[in-house]
Amino acid sequence: MALLTRITGPRDLDRLTLEQLDQLAGEIRTFLVDAVSKTGGHLGPNLGVVELTIALHRVFESPKDRVLWDTGHQSYVHKLLTGRQDFSRLKMKGGLSGYPSQAESEHDVIENSHASTVLGWADGLAKANEVLGRNDHVVAVIGDGALTGGMAWEALNNIADAKDRPLVIVVNDNERSYAPTIGGLANHLATLRTTDGYERFLARGKDLLERTPVVGKPLYETLHGAKKGLKDFIAPQGMFEDLGLKYVGPIDGHDIEALESALTRAKRFGGPVIVHCLTEKGRGYQPALQDEADRFHAVGKIHPDTGLPIASSGADWTSVFGDEMVELGKEREDIVAITAAMLQPVGLDRFAKVFPERVFDVGIAEQHAAVSAAGLATGGLHPVFAVYATFLNRAFDQVLMDVALHKCGVTFVLDRAGVTGTDGASHNGMWDMSILQVVPGLRLAAPRDADQVRAQLREAVEVKDAPTVVRFSKGAVGPAVPAVGRIGGMDVLREPGTDTPDVLLVSVGALAPMCLEIASLLDRQGISTTVVDPRWVKPVDEAMAPLAERHRVVVTVEDNSRVGGVGSAVAQALRDAGVDVPLRDFGIPPRFLDHASRAEVMAEIGLTAPDIARQVTGLVAKLDGRFDGSAAQAVDAVQPARD
Amino acid sequence: MALLTRITGPRDLDRLTLEQLDQLAGEIRTFLVDAVSKTGGHLGPNLGVVELTIALHRVFESPKDRVLWDTGHQSYVHKLLTGRQDFSRLKMKGGLSGYPSQAESEHDVIENSHASTVLGWADGLAKANEVLGRNDHVVAVIGDGALTGGMAWEALNNIADAKDRPLVIVVNDNERSYAPTIGGLANHLATLRTTDGYERFLARGKDLLERTPVVGKPLYETLHGAKKGLKDFIAPQGMFEDLGLKYVGPIDGHDIEALESALTRAKRFGGPVIVHCLTEKGRGYQPALQDEADRFHAVGKIHPDTGLPIASSGADWTSVFGDEMVELGKEREDIVAITAAMLQPVGLDRFAKVFPERVFDVGIAEQHAAVSAAGLATGGLHPVFAVYATFLNRAFDQVLMDVALHKCGVTFVLDRAGVTGTDGASHNGMWDMSILQVVPGLRLAAPRDADQVRAQLREAVEVKDAPTVVRFSKGAVGPAVPAVGRIGGMDVLREPGTDTPDVLLVSVGALAPMCLEIASLLDRQGISTTVVDPRWVKPVDEAMAPLAERHRVVVTVEDNSRVGGVGSAVAQALRDAGVDVPLRDFGIPPRFLDHASRAEVMAEIGLTAPDIARQVTGLVAKLDGRFDGSAAQAVDAVQPARD
Repeated sequence: MALLTRITGPRDLDRLTLEQLDQLAGEIRTFLVDAVSKTGGHLGPNLGVVELTIALHRVFESPKDRVLWDTGHQSYVHKLLTGRQDFSRLKMKGGLSGYPSQAESEHDVIENSHASTVLGWADGLAKANEVLGRNDHVVAVIGDGALTGGMAWEALNNIADAKDRPLVIVVNDNERSYAPTIGGLANHLATLRTTDGYERFLARGKDLLERTPVVGKPLYETLHGAKKGLKDFIAPQGMFEDLGLKYVGPIDGHDIEALESALTRAKRFGGPVIVHCLTEKGRGYQPALQDEADRFHAVGKIHPDTGLPIASSGADWTSVFGDEMVELGKEREDIVAITAAMLQPVGLDRFAKVFPERVFDVGIAEQHAAVSAAGLATGGLHPVFAVYATFLNRAFDQVLMDVALHKCGVTFVLDRAGVTGTDGASHNGMWDMSILQVVPGLRLAAPRDADQVRAQLREAVEVKDAPTVVRFSKGAVGPAVPAVGRIGGMDVLREPGTDTPDVLLVSVGALAPMCLEIASLLDRQGISTTVVDPRWVKPVDEAMAPLAERHRVVVTVEDNSRVGGVGSAVAQALRDAGVDVPLRDFGIPPRFLDHASRAEVMAEIGLTAPDIARQVTGLVAKLDGRFDGSAAQAVDAVQPARD
Repeated sequence: MALLTRITGPRDLDRLTLEQLDQLAGEIRTFLVDAVSKTGGHLGPNLGVVELTIALHRVFESPKDRVLWDTGHQSYVHKLLTGRQDFSRLKMKGGLSGYPSQAESEHDVIENSHASTVLGWADGLAKANEVLGRNDHVVAVIGDGALTGGMAWEALNNIADAKDRPLVIVVNDNERSYAPTIGGLANHLATLRTTDGYERFLARGKDLLERTPVVGKPLYETLHGAKKGLKDFIAPQGMFEDLGLKYVGPIDGHDIEALESALTRAKRFGGPVIVHCLTEKGRGYQPALQDEADRFHAVGKIHPDTGLPIASSGADWTSVFGDEMVELGKEREDIVAITAAMLQPVGLDRFAKVFPERVFDVGIAEQHAAVSAAGLATGGLHPVFAVYATFLNRAFDQVLMDVALHKCGVTFVLDRAGVTGTDGASHNGMWDMSILQVVPGLRLAAPRDADQVRAQLREAVEVKDAPTVVRFSKGAVGPAVPAVGRIGGMDVLREPGTDTPDVLLVSVGALAPMCLEIASLLDRQGISTTVVDPRWVKPVDEAMAPLAERHRVVVTVEDNSRVGGVGSAVAQALRDAGVDVPLRDFGIPPRFLDHASRAEVMAEIGLTAPDIARQVTGLVAKLDGRFDGSAAQAVDAVQPARD
């Protein structure tokens, strides 16, 4: 690391020779494999952009010029070149974020990990430069996959409109896109013949064609087809030039000299320009290159030499869902599946293997996933759209105005709901149970364990005239939490052991074990507690209000924003029934959460059994008049943890 | 109307000769001008699609084949041809909807008036046909403007991917797009020379070029430029063919024979195909053709001969905002404005005239509006994005993840918030105060009158580190409602006249006069009432809980969904402060609202002063023990009106 350790900022790159830059690239790759294998993180994407990042920081003057990364998980090299080389606590509490972070560096702008946003940001920043008369540059790096998102198109349409507003778009076209798109590549090569970049590309393209295994699975074509149309766009004289965008490329994304030359031309152009770079995901790391699935897109802790995972994970929520989908697919021919470019991460790969003609990968296009689901349902099928909870935010209007308004039977399966932790603010699935509350007719299930995932998924796909949602957590699923009774549609998880119980504890989803622990802690204080799991949290079960009325306090606990969530819905249902029993709602405070482990985040926001038990104890004491009146106790007693 | 009255369904068209079809088109135009001038409605767009609609219903067999309309306000002709010729109560309670409606006809599919959705619906329906082995056709009609929306691109990318899945896309390219895009048209003509449709187009194009006034305003270019890039796409050998979509056109959209021929070719093609039709908005109606602004896009009641409005409207919320923006623009050079293709409807035309270089029309692209606003703010400006409340739903993720997460000072101005009425379910702005509650740091103002619009807009643009929202109603703004006092940041609109008041009435926005009326009605029952307007409804004012504690009941009234709205937020703030005073929250019930006048809708959902006063009276009686115990009274007393 002779060179890397001497880089304290981008301008230190100016002194290096081309040979030294290549050496630096090698050092960075060694560093990344070593560091990320210890902590986990996004390895493959960063190995692919080493030379590109070096070239960007040689040609542009960050932070005066803005270097913007789409879906910022490929910003590790950028961090290394901008003064951040301590990766020992990557994605851990107090350590580096896995994404750009304005708090970390003035060189970072976009912290959001949702895809396809960078061109919109770039358009805004370029417009600001124009309005304020600045000559600074804006350069946006976007992957070919992210171009499938509607926001990217909206932005391109705007960017192309101002012919003399400088803006450089780097399309980071990583090699992995090619394997499934041999047909597209062939077409591409045909049109490329007229361009000056062709000769250079040809050598590489041939090499690629020779090295790429013939996949030949029609499934693969079908699933990854969405990218194929896209790929054709990237041809010169294709859509970018139709739009009026100057096109430079294709450029070998691992040739620093070529990259610098292209970026310098683009920088000088004085208008919007596309620089099309071909990069190789996982570049320089054999275990990644040999991984057909995703080239080590994101990894846990691994052995750096073999790339094999160090810790093995048990059964997780995703695979419980994925397996049940296969069973449902066998039983019902009308069930089809939708993914937004995340077939394997959301567990639909198993369904796709068995029913390739019944799964649709729509690209990074959550809006289209939802609206086409409305069409599929209207056409007589029952679509199941599996998506990370945080990404459904992007399809809110379509869930409301297309699926719900038209009474379509569509099931949304929200993975990674609740606090996810290490990926930071934008990956937490903490909004779904709030915003979906307003959708008329929508039914929302929060299963507490694997059995409930299976059961509630089955209940969801039975609903023909309204959207249904099944949301569950990230990672390992805990042991089964048995019901000891049933009230209305709600499972009783714990009886209070008395006819005059104190607390009704409403447990949402995976927090059931925590709620049982809270009840035990309250028990030791002489406070009797009923624990119910509503299973379907929207609409609020009709049995809730009469049940609440038999208690002195109602407490709700959910892994979702406190604002407008299940607690608020239960409170409103009680008000509507004229039941004015005091209620306290525990959940995630209304702020963005810093990255840390799930347990650390939960502790920080007070979503732990001891924290909640202590506050409920205080509230009951207040009702009892057993209150010592001290200010500290008063605050403790009645105020849920907020930010 | 000799022919029109004999058309009871699409198949009645089969018997007519071409000459008769032209006669029918003429009758339909006469009918539309006559009918819509009496009721108001979308006149211009429907006059433009008369022949297109006839041809569609001749070639396709609805409802077996699906004929889909984007932003369905151009479905009047479709209604006339599918058995609905009583337009006397168009958009009125019990009359025809202004949009397609599944309840009206089996020929209608998409009821949603939000733009750019049709291609997603079509993709889903075509996939369903494929999975279920049906040979039915799907045909989607989309305007050139709607193609600027990201959803349309997401859908095209998917549609183009399946080369043998039949789907016909009709691009309804109306003439109005040409005037501002002369440059685009010229480029377009150059590329068109190689196509078979060219000769036909040439005649019309020349005519167009001669008739179109030379606009020459750089402003016009700037504002409408977003469409220009788009226009280039529509050229053959342009982006559609790059995508792999078969292209047919351009077709004269008023030549039934040519349309039938093109649509028949497209129908037989067996894969995805674009039919590019050139139509003239306002066709055949001189007052519309002479209207440079929008060709009578949507009109109120008008004189059919002159096209002049019958009723004149007074000051409205939109113009109060629009005028104040001009003042703010003069005072602060950093203020810029954004519209999503609705410069004039949201009142930004005045700002644009004075500051043409500081306004950005991004196309029908709410996502891009929000994310580019984050870029503009990060670049040192203060953007104001003015948009109809219902359309902001589409940018929820960007408000949250781009603007709020990055602490950008962006002001969102939501016009047409609350019940809008006649445009039906999808035009009501009843979701914003719920979904925006979850956005950390966001501040939301609901001004009650014109003075407050001006004052709160000024307060909003002072906030540098968080999104701010100013939301107001549709239509005429009422007289000023003066404050009689101030508590914290809240305006007191009425003092209770006693030291032991009964009811704290929290009034939101334009409902202030109704709340004062409620207070008067309660007064007659001997119930003393404080009325406050929080002005900023998010976050809940710190003075709210102590104030509530001095009352026996808290009542909130808002023109927004009851679910998760201001009432819920106030209730949570009270819980958090340990104030367990009973609260009742009045607002819009959680269901989609049928079209009717605003007053009719408000009456139907119980959002009237007598309804609310009656329920509050019952609640106070219950607390007093003055309750006769009858079931009817009990229900009346404590249960807010729900669906």
